[in-house]
Amino acid sequence: MRHFLTLKEFSKEEILEIINLAIKIKAETKQGELKPYLKNKTLGMIFEKSSTRTRVSFEVGIYQLGGVGLFLSNKDIQLGRGEPVSDTARVISRMVDMVMIRTFSQSMIEEFAKYSKVPVINGLTDEFHPIQLLADYMTMIEHKKDKNPIVAYVGDGNNMTHSWAILASKLGFELRVATPNGYEIDSELLKNLDLSNIKISNNPKEAVANADVVTTDTWISMGQEDEKEKRIKDFEGFIVDNSLMNLAKKDAIFLHCLPAYRGKEVSEEIIEGAKSVVFDEAENRLHAQKGLMVWLDSKRNN
Amino acid sequence: MRHFLTLKEFSKEEILEIINLAIKIKAETKQGELKPYLKNKTLGMIFEKSSTRTRVSFEVGIYQLGGVGLFLSNKDIQLGRGEPVSDTARVISRMVDMVMIRTFSQSMIEEFAKYSKVPVINGLTDEFHPIQLLADYMTMIEHKKDKNPIVAYVGDGNNMTHSWAILASKLGFELRVATPNGYEIDSELLKNLDLSNIKISNNPKEAVANADVVTTDTWISMGQEDEKEKRIKDFEGFIVDNSLMNLAKKDAIFLHCLPAYRGKEVSEEIIEGAKSVVFDEAENRLHAQKGLMVWLDSKRNN
Amino acid sequence: MRHFLTLKEFSKEEILEIINLAIKIKAETKQGELKPYLKNKTLGMIFEKSSTRTRVSFEVGIYQLGGVGLFLSNKDIQLGRGEPVSDTARVISRMVDMVMIRTFSQSMIEEFAKYSKVPVINGLTDEFHPIQLLADYMTMIEHKKDKNPIVAYVGDGNNMTHSWAILASKLGFELRVATPNGYEIDSELLKNLDLSNIKISNNPKEAVANADVVTTDTWISMGQEDEKEKRIKDFEGFIVDNSLMNLAKKDAIFLHCLPAYRGKEVSEEIIEGAKSVVFDEAENRLHAQKGLMVWLDSKRNN
Repeated sequence: MRHFLTLKEFSKEEILEIINLAIKIKAETKQGELKPYLKNKTLGMIFEKSSTRTRVSFEVGIYQLGGVGLFLSNKDIQLGRGEPVSDTARVISRMVDMVMIRTFSQSMIEEFAKYSKVPVINGLTDEFHPIQLLADYMTMIEHKKDKNPIVAYVGDGNNMTHSWAILASKLGFELRVATPNGYEIDSELLKNLDLSNIKISNNPKEAVANADVVTTDTWISMGQEDEKEKRIKDFEGFIVDNSLMNLAKKDAIFLHCLPAYRGKEVSEEIIEGAKSVVFDEAENRLHAQKGLMVWLDSKRNN
Repeated sequence: MRHFLTLKEFSKEEILEIINLAIKIKAETKQGELKPYLKNKTLGMIFEKSSTRTRVSFEVGIYQLGGVGLFLSNKDIQLGRGEPVSDTARVISRMVDMVMIRTFSQSMIEEFAKYSKVPVINGLTDEFHPIQLLADYMTMIEHKKDKNPIVAYVGDGNNMTHSWAILASKLGFELRVATPNGYEIDSELLKNLDLSNIKISNNPKEAVANADVVTTDTWISMGQEDEKEKRIKDFEGFIVDNSLMNLAKKDAIFLHCLPAYRGKEVSEEIIEGAKSVVFDEAENRLHAQKGLMVWLDSKRNN
Repeated sequence: MRHFLTLKEFSKEEILEIINLAIKIKAETKQGELKPYLKNKTLGMIFEKSSTRTRVSFEVGIYQLGGVGLFLSNKDIQLGRGEPVSDTARVISRMVDMVMIRTFSQSMIEEFAKYSKVPVINGLTDEFHPIQLLADYMTMIEHKKDKNPIVAYVGDGNNMTHSWAILASKLGFELRVATPNGYEIDSELLKNLDLSNIKISNNPKEAVANADVVTTDTWISMGQEDEKEKRIKDFEGFIVDNSLMNLAKKDAIFLHCLPAYRGKEVSEEIIEGAKSVVFDEAENRLHAQKGLMVWLDSKRNN
């Protein structure tokens, strides 16, 4: 049995297997063919943070695969009332076939997985956001023929940045990360990875120069809204706008996992412009996760 | 593709098509025949207000049509956290096949529909409540042979009243609206409609005299509970009780979209009495909406 | 039509019928066979209290029987906003095929059942927790050959205790209840039952001596957390730990409906030890409730 916790525990081959499965299932879906890969299977979806994309994509995804999702917010279950994670994991995993968790701390998901009898999927933690990267890579493939793109991440060194670094390390493409001073990634989370193809700086222009893919993320994340004013100042020059985007390749694409704050990490003209593929990317959450769920299910008896 | 936003955008023929489809599907359901008209389709149900009837009727309805509903409360998705409606609409409508929204402002639904790739249904706004009218008209047909009934609406000039006026304007039956002074309907919302068959007054007795259908609605709506005391005074004489109901035709029926406040807009004796068809009406929410969803789906490629 | 409200309204034969049905359906499920006993049926699940086990087990259960569950929290429907239970019951039971309610007062469920057109299941009240007892008895059968076990309940005289007493009265096995002074069961709730096989005391050691099954429940229940300090003192000596459990039969099993508070009503060594079958018991919630739902459905036309 396999879990999907950080992406670090996956090989290049496995990641490409999942992506290829996702692309295949997407094509079938677009032709109106919903194959019941996970017929009658149940997905427990535990949310300790609110979410649009993760919620809708997982619930529609498992349904289109022939199963059903249970939306379990922490307001509605005992997790939020002090029951040990180990007990909740043992109870829920006796009843459902797979579990997705969106929460704050990575250690909670890892504890859950340790006690779970069924595969556990990381749907976002403060440290990592691996499922977003499956969707992002799938979107890159669809929009760029080149399998070795140059990717520039501009902005906060956060869970998205860590997951970009892990994906780049696994797949070998060039990643350039430019964060403001004081917002660097946590290299502790990336230890034991080969990071030789990852260039880290505080210079957005250098990062974006000649890139194939430019991406960013909000730096006014949930729960940090009081720091807003300070951050607005600290992130000056890190907005992805026309002048920055023009440094990238002519046919570069812009990715953003959403929700986006216009005028903060990205300008209106960019996110609504011709280079933006953010809604394709959002839709690919649905398809990538279907691929992931089918893949995980196929490994249950391994 | 069509949306269902105010009922103003529908012709008489279209409204009757939907009602007839609803009546047909209801009959099939009562015979234990659940035809998968919307097989494997997903309905996103966005709620910014709590609800019993809308919630249960849509979720059961889409399920009985062969699909599934996703209950998306604003506490659980990003809409309530400042993501622009245009972004949420573009993301969600990439993943689901139809969207129902229950919210405060009509403009939010119209903005959502503008950006949506799938049909959008108004499940209640401060301005309109068109799906309730489908259920109400269906209930009228079931209980009264006459296709041209006299309908008396007594009470607050609110979203229900506006929708009654639109339905009457479209279908041509006589509607009499009696509201207290200061609680008149917002005629701005009804502009460009032929209102010649609609009689507006502040006189409940005149409105109810010889009517076939008498209806009202709560005037202690959600969010207005602090004004309660003032309203109790203002609505004196506007309660639908025996003495008022006795002015209507002998076989008149009483409608109420619920929840009802006994002793406020309606007396216990009326809502629990023989003329009350409020639970048939509530059940018809389920059937009317099934008709509506099937109809909207049939127009997707138009 | 039958409801499942207290277990008092069921005969021994009926209880065993439900349990046997549950055991049969569990075996089918374990062989990967999900028979659509309740094909296309809908279960309304009304929660006025948060819950992990009840929520997941009912929602997965109805789904595995071929239907679907609607999670209706009191935050999301009108019940929490003052609509009379009789109205909500009449509306919801026009739309769904069965209703499960987890709430505070037993009288609310009984009122709901009185007005409901479909079977109503008690999913926990302050007074009773009958569905837990179906799972517990099923677990006892699976782990003990003896159909006449001695059961010791140690702890708070609460809804679980009342339901143990009712089950013992119906089935005839020996039940020993030991509660601290001041935490006795409410005998008013058990009137008209034959309690001759039930031994009530304030002595946990006496209760556990030579028992086949030892069980307890949290005494820091939801909503009582301010009384915590007082209770910690009052429940001294009522913890199920090794020294108490060693007084039971050698092959005795330990049951707990969860969530458990280690170091309070049960020690870590016991709940995680070899005699604990609490996760089997939790899983049996799923199976027992499937048996119950199928049984109730079979009585709809009776």
